[in-house]
Amino acid sequence: MAVPAVRDESLEQARLNIRRGQFRGPTAGLAPGYVQGNLVILPRTYADDFRNFCLRNPTPCPLIGMSEPGDPTLAALGDLDIRTDLPRYRVWKSGVVVDEVTDIGSLWGPDLVTFVLGCSFTFEHVLAESGIPLRHIQERRNVAMYRTSMKTAPAGPFHGPLVVSMRPMKATDAIRAIQITTRYPLAHGAPVHLGAPELIGIDDLMAPDYGDAVDVAPDEIPVFWACGVTTQVAIEQAKPETCITHAPGCMLITGLPTTKIALL
Amino acid sequence: MAVPAVRDESLEQARLNIRRGQFRGPTAGLAPGYVQGNLVILPRTYADDFRNFCLRNPTPCPLIGMSEPGDPTLAALGDLDIRTDLPRYRVWKSGVVVDEVTDIGSLWGPDLVTFVLGCSFTFEHVLAESGIPLRHIQERRNVAMYRTSMKTAPAGPFHGPLVVSMRPMKATDAIRAIQITTRYPLAHGAPVHLGAPELIGIDDLMAPDYGDAVDVAPDEIPVFWACGVTTQVAIEQAKPETCITHAPGCMLITGLPTTKIALL
Repeated sequence: MAVPAVRDESLEQARLNIRRGQFRGPTAGLAPGYVQGNLVILPRTYADDFRNFCLRNPTPCPLIGMSEPGDPTLAALGDLDIRTDLPRYRVWKSGVVVDEVTDIGSLWGPDLVTFVLGCSFTFEHVLAESGIPLRHIQERRNVAMYRTSMKTAPAGPFHGPLVVSMRPMKATDAIRAIQITTRYPLAHGAPVHLGAPELIGIDDLMAPDYGDAVDVAPDEIPVFWACGVTTQVAIEQAKPETCITHAPGCMLITGLPTTKIALL
Repeated sequence: MAVPAVRDESLEQARLNIRRGQFRGPTAGLAPGYVQGNLVILPRTYADDFRNFCLRNPTPCPLIGMSEPGDPTLAALGDLDIRTDLPRYRVWKSGVVVDEVTDIGSLWGPDLVTFVLGCSFTFEHVLAESGIPLRHIQERRNVAMYRTSMKTAPAGPFHGPLVVSMRPMKATDAIRAIQITTRYPLAHGAPVHLGAPELIGIDDLMAPDYGDAVDVAPDEIPVFWACGVTTQVAIEQAKPETCITHAPGCMLITGLPTTKIALL
């Protein structure tokens, strides 16, 4: 999926473009310096089990926000309206994606609970500032994401494999990226794997399950971070009657500065 | 080189065994919890240049001690006598090893300046406590060390390639080891490379330039740390009339607790 050329805009401009439906693509590289989040909206009967799923799997599912039922705001994450402030939403029925939309106002209701989980896009500008090139941003593609053979800890009906995002890097950059991302546990933290993809059940790096493939050069290593799309695989398993998530790569840009969640 | 079975002894016992010439092998795994160091002893005319070489290459050459000329003690590193407290010394003449001895009392003189540089054996017990197996310790071998195609920054007559030590690890252990060793810049800190050895000029992992080869399993990655033997290659180049170093892997065990040099 190609990314329109509205990168490097301010937080306000990025949010406005998204809110107005003018920006509908992946958010990697947008509003650098602000935490980006995965979105899961569920009926309140699922809220306790899903919260437990997040708490038991804090690496793929670092919970940074949870709303009261029916409340479309999350004051701790900035001046936002969850119904309009993501570029693209997936609408789920019984564990199956039935629609992708850019606004969920017409689907909102008093029974819905919103969960926001930190996303690895959060630390990408820190990597870039450290001189580590990120191919999916350079090539204006969505990051590549893969289902793995690694398991999550189940909670109620929520279970399934870990999903990861992949960034190819030279070894010295991978070492530096591990140091940097260790500082951001609320954005998935350090990688969960690097090197041989087959060791975590990925057969073909050029065929990601979500997002876009990028080349891995001969002097590069694929580096894998836990990914919030893990929640969407768990939703496939749990089959809630209704559910709304972000579309992979099309994240909530919060008003929370990345510096606020950094260790050290 | 096989390692005699005197591991896990206290610092005092380890030092006494070494001082008496009863222990003459590699020190990996000995006196866990204490900083281990590389040794370089040079005539004072070389001292300024060698100190500059260390300061310009702090990753392979982290200086933790420097003596006054002729003084065989280093009070900051504990109650030690540099003439007797290493298991094995190399004696150099004009850049060539001419002897290996277990005591340098008869070679000592008022003109000699001692340098001690932190060694990666320092952090190995921290890795082990974190559940990361170290094959050279399990197999009672010396760690494998290699000359690389990476260059040091020269100082006076001292120059040459970087030498690295290698530890094979599973990817998750390598990621954790990067986090842990980042805390120990005075013991070489984080790795300088991981994965493909040919990218840093190592043709055959099973033919190390120093120490003993260990197998790398199919699900493991070779992880490379800068090594203090880098100084010995620089000594080959500088060709000082006389010089004394440790034998690779046969380190000075200092009285400095590892906890004292840890960041965080």
